[in-house]
Amino acid sequence: MNQLFSDRILNSKKSFIREILKVTSNKDIISFAGGLPNPISFPTSALRDAMTTVTDKNGSHIFQYATTEGYLPLREYIAKRYQIKHGLSINAEDILITSGSQQGLDLIGKVFLNKSDSILIEKPGYLGAIQALSLYEPHFHQVDLLEDGVDLDQFKTRLAQDTMKLFYSVPNFQNPTGLTYSRANRQALGLMLTHTQTVLIEDDPYGELRFFGEDLPYIQSFSNCPSILLGSFSKIVTPGMRIGWICTTHPQIMEKLIIAKQASDLHTNYFAQRVIYQYLIDNNLEEHISHIKKLYKEQCEAMVSSIHKYFPENIKVTQPEGGMFLWVTLPKYLSSLKLFELASELKVAFVPGEPFYIGEIPQNTLRLNYTNSDIQTIDKGIRRLGEAIHKLIKNTVTY
Amino acid sequence: MNQLFSDRILNSKKSFIREILKVTSNKDIISFAGGLPNPISFPTSALRDAMTTVTDKNGSHIFQYATTEGYLPLREYIAKRYQIKHGLSINAEDILITSGSQQGLDLIGKVFLNKSDSILIEKPGYLGAIQALSLYEPHFHQVDLLEDGVDLDQFKTRLAQDTMKLFYSVPNFQNPTGLTYSRANRQALGLMLTHTQTVLIEDDPYGELRFFGEDLPYIQSFSNCPSILLGSFSKIVTPGMRIGWICTTHPQIMEKLIIAKQASDLHTNYFAQRVIYQYLIDNNLEEHISHIKKLYKEQCEAMVSSIHKYFPENIKVTQPEGGMFLWVTLPKYLSSLKLFELASELKVAFVPGEPFYIGEIPQNTLRLNYTNSDIQTIDKGIRRLGEAIHKLIKNTVTY
Repeated sequence: MNQLFSDRILNSKKSFIREILKVTSNKDIISFAGGLPNPISFPTSALRDAMTTVTDKNGSHIFQYATTEGYLPLREYIAKRYQIKHGLSINAEDILITSGSQQGLDLIGKVFLNKSDSILIEKPGYLGAIQALSLYEPHFHQVDLLEDGVDLDQFKTRLAQDTMKLFYSVPNFQNPTGLTYSRANRQALGLMLTHTQTVLIEDDPYGELRFFGEDLPYIQSFSNCPSILLGSFSKIVTPGMRIGWICTTHPQIMEKLIIAKQASDLHTNYFAQRVIYQYLIDNNLEEHISHIKKLYKEQCEAMVSSIHKYFPENIKVTQPEGGMFLWVTLPKYLSSLKLFELASELKVAFVPGEPFYIGEIPQNTLRLNYTNSDIQTIDKGIRRLGEAIHKLIKNTVTY
Repeated sequence: MNQLFSDRILNSKKSFIREILKVTSNKDIISFAGGLPNPISFPTSALRDAMTTVTDKNGSHIFQYATTEGYLPLREYIAKRYQIKHGLSINAEDILITSGSQQGLDLIGKVFLNKSDSILIEKPGYLGAIQALSLYEPHFHQVDLLEDGVDLDQFKTRLAQDTMKLFYSVPNFQNPTGLTYSRANRQALGLMLTHTQTVLIEDDPYGELRFFGEDLPYIQSFSNCPSILLGSFSKIVTPGMRIGWICTTHPQIMEKLIIAKQASDLHTNYFAQRVIYQYLIDNNLEEHISHIKKLYKEQCEAMVSSIHKYFPENIKVTQPEGGMFLWVTLPKYLSSLKLFELASELKVAFVPGEPFYIGEIPQNTLRLNYTNSDIQTIDKGIRRLGEAIHKLIKNTVTY
């Protein structure tokens, strides 16, 4: 009997988080498990106005097939924002609009990875990237993420041990940890990568959501290796429209990405691109982002303060400067999977750390999202989680 | 020096049609090259109404992340349409919403194909499928498409020669030829596939656009092999929103497709799904499709009649019962690539047959699209093309 399915899909598990989210669809459960923006941050009425404007101004044309690269004025807008915010010399032809930045990861897999190529990601690393790239059957290597960025000694050793096809990083408010690479860390990584052929991927969906401190340059500013930035409107306008982008000034890489994009879905929803663009030119994006940051900063601070109130003292939590997540490290003898069960009984959910690791898996970590719950709910949920932790400690000691 | 790119992308060419479309972006050129619906067929104002209704009724929720499978009521609508129109026992859980049916092809590649697997497609075959599946590095085999469907002897021989992982077909008004499989042909193919493990893919973007004759059952109705249908709103509502679907009653296949979809782009634009669904329930789709069919039938007949007027007699043209394309076969000694050059000088464009073949390539075929030009333009363009053919014959005889 022949094998019906491909090796790549037989080796892919159902998403752990998907399964958890099914459990948490119960309305009674307070969920810190997802990675959802707060819907009160969506500019609903401005998007409604943008739709009617776009349709009334352009008629049927906006419902036609469109170019693979994306709507040119939108690409120009994105390029200009990189120029203004980061002083990068990026032009519209360096931007490819994608169906969310998740699709960017798929296209990167398509364009760069042969089966068994070695690639390097953070430990813990972004689950969506692990899923997307897994389908191209590479050998994953992980490098520890510390408070100020990647462990540089480990990074150096990994680069020396094996030819790494790419290094995938989330330098700002990383998912799952909320950690941010320091300037010094970025510089050191950039220098180590210079003149390697490792492709540097910087995925930056949260970069605009900085609560305090200053914006830092991308790692690519310190390097000459081939490099790619991934960006998205999901966290600053709307995730449901799936509008992201890939940015690279390397023309050959862009050419290959366009071929892969065309084969994958022809082009990204054109109407949605037009609506987002209309929204951007008719509204003050900076002001809108300020509102989101204020909201999330309060929610983040509320979660941290509730954690200090309800969790035992020997539990470590990251202090994010922005983004959407907190990372909790329990004492080594406690299991976050067991905690998940106890927490479910108390009607609160989170993501155990397991899916963010490849190979050796620490049992005592977990991710908390604070963006999609109000402050009262955060306090209530963290209180329940604190109870669950106390129960877990008691149970673990008892056995 | 290491190889920067993957083998799959190094072996992929830029799309031939993309390059042609660049030439035809010149406004003076009459283009029968693209595969675009006529924008006058888009229900622009009804879609505008659907957007405002959806936004006003639901608020911010429609801009949030959504499920990978797609919006349940839309999946139910599609399933019900299969029940009503084809008597198929399809339920919502058999439908996965995709970012255009092009993405369906990519997901099929991901889920079924290991490198070097043998797959079978029509000759000539749909270029978009060749591009999408190529990235999974299979061995393509082609089987001749005749007036009434696939060459059955060849099909039998191919199945006997090699284990075919899948058979990809466009049974209604095929792209590029406009040909339709007869009932007898479908039945014979279905029987030959029964109890094989070849996955039967029926891609049916044009099936609703039948100008005359009766709807025919899908090949899968005559077979027990694992099977998949691909569908799309691109030709009956709007292509720019990229809403297509995969339909399979095989639960394991669906499970794998969902995993692949999630890794590829998380989910399809949720807002667009809601808008399309609102459009479908607030409007009479059958009536709308009748308008499109009337329009395209007239354009098709105009093109055929102009061809009879302006082309030499020894040129063969298909007589489609629906869809968007005509297929022209020149006498064997004439080259459609040379014709393309002469036609460009006379400001008319088409797609030479070359990109629809793998391996041995007939030089004398070409595809004409009639849906995106009005009747006057069709006559003018076909007159120019007739002139170009007469020139080509003269030149070819002279040399």
